[in-house]
Amino acid sequence: MRYFKAIVEYDGTDFRGFQWQHGSRTVQGELESAIEARTGQQVRVTGAGRTDAGVHALGQVISFGAESQIPIDRMARALNSSLPKDLAVKAVEEVDSEFNARFKASARVYAYLILNRKTPSPIWRRYAAFSPEPLDIEAMREAAALMIGEQDFAAFTNSLQPDEPTYRDVKVCRVSAWNSLILVRIEANAFLRGMVRNIVGTLIQIGSGAYSPEHLRVIQASRSRQMAGPSAPPQGLCLMKVRFGERKVYARRERTEE
Amino acid sequence: MRYFKAIVEYDGTDFRGFQWQHGSRTVQGELESAIEARTGQQVRVTGAGRTDAGVHALGQVISFGAESQIPIDRMARALNSSLPKDLAVKAVEEVDSEFNARFKASARVYAYLILNRKTPSPIWRRYAAFSPEPLDIEAMREAAALMIGEQDFAAFTNSLQPDEPTYRDVKVCRVSAWNSLILVRIEANAFLRGMVRNIVGTLIQIGSGAYSPEHLRVIQASRSRQMAGPSAPPQGLCLMKVRFGERKVYARRERTEE
Repeated sequence: MRYFKAIVEYDGTDFRGFQWQHGSRTVQGELESAIEARTGQQVRVTGAGRTDAGVHALGQVISFGAESQIPIDRMARALNSSLPKDLAVKAVEEVDSEFNARFKASARVYAYLILNRKTPSPIWRRYAAFSPEPLDIEAMREAAALMIGEQDFAAFTNSLQPDEPTYRDVKVCRVSAWNSLILVRIEANAFLRGMVRNIVGTLIQIGSGAYSPEHLRVIQASRSRQMAGPSAPPQGLCLMKVRFGERKVYARRERTEE
Repeated sequence: MRYFKAIVEYDGTDFRGFQWQHGSRTVQGELESAIEARTGQQVRVTGAGRTDAGVHALGQVISFGAESQIPIDRMARALNSSLPKDLAVKAVEEVDSEFNARFKASARVYAYLILNRKTPSPIWRRYAAFSPEPLDIEAMREAAALMIGEQDFAAFTNSLQPDEPTYRDVKVCRVSAWNSLILVRIEANAFLRGMVRNIVGTLIQIGSGAYSPEHLRVIQASRSRQMAGPSAPPQGLCLMKVRFGERKVYARRERTEE
C-alpha cells in the first residue's frame, strides 16, 4: 500500500461541501471516484478542512492510501484527467502511513472576500460576499485584533457535540482592503463548525456600526451563538493553506452549560 | 427624450458576446430587455466595445436614449433589478444627445490573464487562459514593447471589410506577472476584430520560445493572419475601461490586397 498527500483546489459553487453525502455532489465523493477510476480501488479520502457547501479551496490538503503503479510525478495529471473542471489536484507527494491530513494538520488558513460597493458584481459574485452598506475598515481591524489568541469561540459555532472543547488558537486575523474589496485572513490551529463565517458576519456588523469592536468581548464571554452576527455567505470563503508543523498540545477545556 | 451613458460589468461566460443576435443570449439583448422592462420602451443600446462570446467586462460603456421618469440616482438600481446576476450596471449618468459610446470613445483598455502553471485551476478557469508550458516573461515583455505605436495590425485581425483601415494606435502593451498569473494590459484608440486575442496568442508563442520577439516585425510587415499566433481563448480577456477624451484624427490608410 502507498500513502499520498495531495494539495487540492476547487470552485465550491457547485459542490454540496467537502464531505461525502449520499446522492450529493461533494469534493470527497468526486476525489474518491477519480482515485477509483485511476487505481481501480475504493479508497477513503481524508481532508484537512471539511468545507461547507459553496466554500472554495486553493490549498485544501487530502490524504489517502492506495495500491497503484502510477509514478508519483504522473499522479496529479492522472487524477486530473478523471476529475471535473471545478476540482483539480495541484501536487501529490508520497508520505508514510502515519500521515493524516486532518489529524496531523497544525494550522488552517482561510481567506474571506467581501465586495463593499453599492452595486453587485457579476465577476466577483462567485468568490466574494456582496455587502452594499459602507463598512468601517478601522473598526473591523480593531475587532479582528481581539480575535487573536487562545480563546473560547463557543459564541461563533453553529453546533457543538456534548463535551466538545470550544477553545481555539487564532494566530492571525487581519483585515485588508483595496478598492471595493475587503479581505479577512484568518489562521488558527483548527476551527469550530461555521466559525470563520460567523466571525466574518460579526466583523461585518461591527464595520456597519451595529456595535463597537469592544462589544466582541461581551459576545465571546456570552458563549452564545445568538449574541454573534449572522453567518457570512459561503461564496466569500476560501481555504488557502494547511500547515503541517509542530503540533502544540492544547489544554482541553470543557464547554459548560449555558 | 433623455440620453444615458452607463458603465456595465459582466461575466461573459454564458453570453454569446455583446452584440444582439437573433435567438442568442447577448449582453446587448439583456440590457435592452431590462431597459424595456423599466421604461416600457424598446431602445437600441450602443456599446463601446463589441466583446466576443465568453469575453468579460469590468468597464464596458454603453449609451442609449429613453423616455423615463426614473431619477438618475435610482437608474442603476432600477436596471439591476431587471438584469440577470451575470450582468450589472455600475453607474449611470445623463449625457447630451450627441454622446455615443462607440463613436465618442477615444481609447479602450483590455486586460488578458494567463495562468502559467502545470495544473489547471478550478478557481481561475472562468477568468484566465490556461497555458501549462513555462513562458519567458522577459521575451513577452520585449515583444509587447514592439506592439506600441501607430502601426498596421492587419496580421492580427480575423476578418476585414473591403477598404477597412488596419492602422491602430496602441498606447500601452505591458506584461506583468505574479506567481503563476501573467497579465497583459493593452490600450489602443480602437481594436480590429480579434486583435487583442491574436496579439496575446502571438505573445504566448514568443514566451514559449517558438520565435524571437524581433520576429514580430516580420509578422507585422506580412499583414497576413497566418503569420501571427493562434487566437488566445476568450475567457482570459476583460474590457477594463473606456476613455472619452480628446479624439485624435487618424490618417486613413487603406489595406492593400495580399
